[in-house]
Amino acid sequence: MKTLVVVAHPKLASSTTQPFFKAAVEDFTTVTWHPLHAEFDVTQEQQLLTEHDRIIFQFPLYWYGAPGLLKNWLDQVLTVRFATGNRYALADKELGLVVTAGEAAADFQAGGAEQYTMSELMRPFEALAHKLRMRYLPVLAVHQFLYLTPEAQQRLLVRYQQYVNNPNFEHFAGQVAWFSDQLRHQIAKADSASAALNQVLESLENRQSELDDLAWNLSMLKKEEDS
Amino acid sequence: MKTLVVVAHPKLASSTTQPFFKAAVEDFTTVTWHPLHAEFDVTQEQQLLTEHDRIIFQFPLYWYGAPGLLKNWLDQVLTVRFATGNRYALADKELGLVVTAGEAAADFQAGGAEQYTMSELMRPFEALAHKLRMRYLPVLAVHQFLYLTPEAQQRLLVRYQQYVNNPNFEHFAGQVAWFSDQLRHQIAKADSASAALNQVLESLENRQSELDDLAWNLSMLKKEEDS
Repeated sequence: MKTLVVVAHPKLASSTTQPFFKAAVEDFTTVTWHPLHAEFDVTQEQQLLTEHDRIIFQFPLYWYGAPGLLKNWLDQVLTVRFATGNRYALADKELGLVVTAGEAAADFQAGGAEQYTMSELMRPFEALAHKLRMRYLPVLAVHQFLYLTPEAQQRLLVRYQQYVNNPNFEHFAGQVAWFSDQLRHQIAKADSASAALNQVLESLENRQSELDDLAWNLSMLKKEEDS
Repeated sequence: MKTLVVVAHPKLASSTTQPFFKAAVEDFTTVTWHPLHAEFDVTQEQQLLTEHDRIIFQFPLYWYGAPGLLKNWLDQVLTVRFATGNRYALADKELGLVVTAGEAAADFQAGGAEQYTMSELMRPFEALAHKLRMRYLPVLAVHQFLYLTPEAQQRLLVRYQQYVNNPNFEHFAGQVAWFSDQLRHQIAKADSASAALNQVLESLENRQSELDDLAWNLSMLKKEEDS
């Protein structure tokens, strides 16, 4: 799976979250990091989109939507001839959003300071995905990054890596498989001192079915508790 | 009431609807027609906003939202210091949207080709109005303008004029009062041949309370039918 991360940040140089995200995925060879500029070549951008399977729009929330920088790009790159018409060049690809917001998560609900959920505010993107016959992924919203503890940042990093790079990040089995893959890469890179990592990997793989059972039992238990 | 019509159309010269709207309000001295360009002066734009009571964003629907032209303008003109902060420069003003769409009205619903209602797609503007402490007006959506009959265009023209110029367009009494005003202006302009117009105006004004009663009775009847 190849992923295109379309980064739309009008003040990229002064952003703290974008370098964090960039560092998180720079070792992934199947991920293309693509910061937008006001000027671009429509044909090149279309080419880039067709070459990837998962498209991610990544931006700070400006007045309840993407910055004009991204909207301009969408208005021009997604021509009718390319995106719909007879061609539907992006059909069956995935569309994800990584949205950074300075407001707390709890503000985004009825009665909260921002009144609407992130899902509601991102409806135009959901409608876009539907129109282009893409699969819309759940939004990855990052609230108040600067206030996160180092541990929370670390968890976010792994979550982000999977959002970008894990074909099956929404399911437990997919998460375990992805972690095994990551370990295998680490071992291949490490050469020496990989005995410990090998052991972790082996143990993870031997217990895959056990872990699946565990995850399934846990979800059943939760359902019973809720009903 | 002073109204600012912010026209955000990237291809204004080739638009057929925007000249139609412009002609509809060019006789109203309290309406400012303001087409956006890529370059602008933030302070001047802020000044313009503060000088008006009703702000209307008027644009063609591009990928389920406003064109990047408007979003860029919003991102830059609505500075925190100006729009929120301690100042809330737009508080108590009204925010209206005139959205033109090439798709039919019936497409904008669950299960329809566009999946979501115009109200849902315009949530970001509703959230913006809420944040800036403005009153959000119901969206005036214009679908498939080119297919409208001359009669339907005429009805749209009057609806548009009221959306822009009538402080109380949402209520029947406000509509009657606005029509009386328009007639008075026509009579003042006409000089001769105004006898007929005078008679219409007189009859309208004499029957104002009758008309109010009629409107009230009608709405009661509808409610009874529905229950």
